[in-house]
Amino acid sequence: MQASTIQSKFIRIRSNKLFELLVISVIIFSALLVGAKTYEMSDTLITVAKFLDWFITIFFLTEISIRFIAEPRKRDFFKNFWNIFDTLIVLISLIPADDTDMAIIARLVRVFRVLRMISIIPELRLLLTSLVKAMPQLGYVMLLMFIIFYIYAAIGSTLFESINPVLWGDITVSMLTLFRVMTFEDWTDVMYETMAVYPMSWVFYLTFIFLSAFAFLNMVIGIVVNVMEQENEKARAEAMEERGEPTIVDLSQQLTQIQQQLNELTAQTKSDKTK
Amino acid sequence: MQASTIQSKFIRIRSNKLFELLVISVIIFSALLVGAKTYEMSDTLITVAKFLDWFITIFFLTEISIRFIAEPRKRDFFKNFWNIFDTLIVLISLIPADDTDMAIIARLVRVFRVLRMISIIPELRLLLTSLVKAMPQLGYVMLLMFIIFYIYAAIGSTLFESINPVLWGDITVSMLTLFRVMTFEDWTDVMYETMAVYPMSWVFYLTFIFLSAFAFLNMVIGIVVNVMEQENEKARAEAMEERGEPTIVDLSQQLTQIQQQLNELTAQTKSDKTK
Amino acid sequence: MQASTIQSKFIRIRSNKLFELLVISVIIFSALLVGAKTYEMSDTLITVAKFLDWFITIFFLTEISIRFIAEPRKRDFFKNFWNIFDTLIVLISLIPADDTDMAIIARLVRVFRVLRMISIIPELRLLLTSLVKAMPQLGYVMLLMFIIFYIYAAIGSTLFESINPVLWGDITVSMLTLFRVMTFEDWTDVMYETMAVYPMSWVFYLTFIFLSAFAFLNMVIGIVVNVMEQENEKARAEAMEERGEPTIVDLSQQLTQIQQQLNELTAQTKSDKTK
Amino acid sequence: MQASTIQSKFIRIRSNKLFELLVISVIIFSALLVGAKTYEMSDTLITVAKFLDWFITIFFLTEISIRFIAEPRKRDFFKNFWNIFDTLIVLISLIPADDTDMAIIARLVRVFRVLRMISIIPELRLLLTSLVKAMPQLGYVMLLMFIIFYIYAAIGSTLFESINPVLWGDITVSMLTLFRVMTFEDWTDVMYETMAVYPMSWVFYLTFIFLSAFAFLNMVIGIVVNVMEQENEKARAEAMEERGEPTIVDLSQQLTQIQQQLNELTAQTKSDKTK
Repeated sequence: MQASTIQSKFIRIRSNKLFELLVISVIIFSALLVGAKTYEMSDTLITVAKFLDWFITIFFLTEISIRFIAEPRKRDFFKNFWNIFDTLIVLISLIPADDTDMAIIARLVRVFRVLRMISIIPELRLLLTSLVKAMPQLGYVMLLMFIIFYIYAAIGSTLFESINPVLWGDITVSMLTLFRVMTFEDWTDVMYETMAVYPMSWVFYLTFIFLSAFAFLNMVIGIVVNVMEQENEKARAEAMEERGEPTIVDLSQQLTQIQQQLNELTAQTKSDKTK
Repeated sequence: MQASTIQSKFIRIRSNKLFELLVISVIIFSALLVGAKTYEMSDTLITVAKFLDWFITIFFLTEISIRFIAEPRKRDFFKNFWNIFDTLIVLISLIPADDTDMAIIARLVRVFRVLRMISIIPELRLLLTSLVKAMPQLGYVMLLMFIIFYIYAAIGSTLFESINPVLWGDITVSMLTLFRVMTFEDWTDVMYETMAVYPMSWVFYLTFIFLSAFAFLNMVIGIVVNVMEQENEKARAEAMEERGEPTIVDLSQQLTQIQQQLNELTAQTKSDKTK
Repeated sequence: MQASTIQSKFIRIRSNKLFELLVISVIIFSALLVGAKTYEMSDTLITVAKFLDWFITIFFLTEISIRFIAEPRKRDFFKNFWNIFDTLIVLISLIPADDTDMAIIARLVRVFRVLRMISIIPELRLLLTSLVKAMPQLGYVMLLMFIIFYIYAAIGSTLFESINPVLWGDITVSMLTLFRVMTFEDWTDVMYETMAVYPMSWVFYLTFIFLSAFAFLNMVIGIVVNVMEQENEKARAEAMEERGEPTIVDLSQQLTQIQQQLNELTAQTKSDKTK
Repeated sequence: MQASTIQSKFIRIRSNKLFELLVISVIIFSALLVGAKTYEMSDTLITVAKFLDWFITIFFLTEISIRFIAEPRKRDFFKNFWNIFDTLIVLISLIPADDTDMAIIARLVRVFRVLRMISIIPELRLLLTSLVKAMPQLGYVMLLMFIIFYIYAAIGSTLFESINPVLWGDITVSMLTLFRVMTFEDWTDVMYETMAVYPMSWVFYLTFIFLSAFAFLNMVIGIVVNVMEQENEKARAEAMEERGEPTIVDLSQQLTQIQQQLNELTAQTKSDKTK
């Protein structure tokens, strides 16, 4: 009975506006701390930062515990992606990191706490979800792009490896070089180097730029059309349902009713006549 | 009574087409003067420019005074953002600037007079207002972008500070470096430098480019969809209101009227029968 | 009578498909000749090229004369922009160019003959006309962009002239430098140079990039929305006029007719009753 | 009779899901092999790779044979572009390549086997077909772009050849330089070089950038509008046909029926009256 009382108390805490604000403040504060630590700091400040770090870790641990206890069914807690995400961030922070090698990893983990900003603000969560949802629809265009990259990287690696092994050494490095070419980053330097040996190699670069640009354009247009359609669908649904505006289907039904009325009327008039 | 006469006279001046043209001419002239002063000038020309500068300042002061006196309610004058803007520009120009340190600031203030071009042309004012209005809708995407920048800058500053403190010294400098990477400006130079120490650091750059490009694309699409919807809304409103074209709602109402007429007719025919 | 016969003969030539094809062939040939002359050539080839050049000039002169004589009203001939364009290209080619200074100009004029490709192909003429038509609608966005450039160039020239006079010497050079920054071309080199003196000058570059990007985006969206609207308008017009599909207005008129019929019928039935 | 049995057996194999999966696996495996060969390999691994190469060649030969025999009408087999494509890839792989010069070509041919990924996955085939279909509609914009490039290259080659023959030597090289300028790749280096001789040559670069950007934008908008229209057409067709939703045409027909009914009714009532 007592456990249940604690739980109901925690549920009240969880849905408290002030508690939510406090959590957001601590997340922002932890983000600022992460930023501050990238500046030169005096020894006293480092000690303060360490203390604050532990305070934040304990606060997050408490917060996640409250949310876990407040959950009526413990299983559902881990069905929510963001809960798992938050728990992991907190748990990894708990690992002690004293020697220098681990220290850098520990600092990086603290950076990821800033990501809790996304899990706490619903609008940002929505933005990310929409990204993940858009992914599968773009699957085939991205596969096509990967094939284009792979083929050109294989050709580039085969032909140009002896010219510049740093850029064309193996297929992974070649794909990175091609990505560089795609972003137009000093791509002519890459091209002029190979053109000194193979004067026609500009064909390689130009066809690659055109093909990858086409695939990229296809991807962007795919996203735009998707978004537009969703907006249109939403707008149409709103217009119809909320404002209760009649549709062409409604008009057609009304017309059918009128025809039935007319038929009745005609039948009546006929029966009058025969009488 | 006399004050009122002056006011009505000034109102007439303010709405005079010629006066408006004169103001625009002086603004353009002041812009040209600002441009001319960036060239080498002989001493006589510098004296002439100084004189012209004072003439423009006095002209703008006179103009703003006329508009202020012409305003029926003095309070409303400062409710308009553009009036405050114009007054500030003029007032700051009045501050005397003789020593060399202030001279450069005085010159910069004169540059901002060119901005009066925006306050005087309604179409440009509209463009800027539409920008300001679009801002809040883009708020969350920009917040997401800032979080992406902040996290990557914190990681970059933690890992790469020892490699190149000029680029990755603290979180502010790292964010500037990341903006550079986002604009593809010699980004491979930055990457190759860190890849010499951390061979896998290309993952850092590529994920950053993809995430920021996604957020940016989201922003652009957001703006495009917004503009399109506004245009559609406007087009629909025009089609309906101005041309008086019937809508589906009107058709439905007409049909309901017909049904009522039919009901009456049927009732009548029935009463005939019973008679 | 004879003049008229020549004219009617020329009209027949002008509208002859073969003659049109011949003109296009000569234009393409003259374009190839222009390209060929950029390569190293032996003396004999240069003589041949000179001969061909004169042949093309005479051919174009003949063609333009035929089109002029074929025109029923000589005045209308020069009302057409493309006729004036073609005539000018031909006339300038006639100017003899023997000394070296004029030779280069003469060669450039021959290059412009390639532009006749645009005047002869209607689809390309349409593309260019649509460009010219789109210009005025973009006027205010372009003015805004110019003001942004002008103000930033004035500020840049005032503050940075002593740092690098080549980039920031006067307002014209500064605007060129800003255009370079807008295209992200080694813009960090420009920025790092001024940041050495004014550490906060990154604010100058970042605000400029955001403002000009916003203005540019506005321009692109403006064009896209314009094109879309024209397409929609065209599609709607097609759907209605060509296919003869009824509109909501037609439906409303039909309904009004039905109501009148019902009214008549009701009146009749009533008169029956009273009888 | 026996031949027919083999054919029907092969048809069953061809449409077998497992067989299809096996083919895709071998294609992916051959792609991985192509990638692996770009890395340093020990002699034993090279021998293994050679063996696997022959296995893949034989497998593809078998697969194409099965598909050919399974085809009821042999002529139709070569009417399909993708069948010809697959056959060519396989046949070229069969050419023995022992000496070093041919070895590199042989390796490149093996790279093109990765393209079979596109021929085997219907969605990728569709993407490519849509590209090919979009081409002719973009024909005139691309022609315009080519003319712009050609004219500017001719001018550049005429004026700047003496300044930098590597960049402006002949019309082909000049067009490559202009493409570089269009991608903003170190374009100011190119410009500053010619501005040292012709101080006004920035006009050449800026007009080129604006014209080519306009033509490019036109192209992109053309593609976007095309895609949008297709999507709209598809959406409209779906809404009408699949859901059986009435259109305005249907409504109009229903109204015409009602009018006929009313006419009949009126005629009847009149005949009542006369009786």
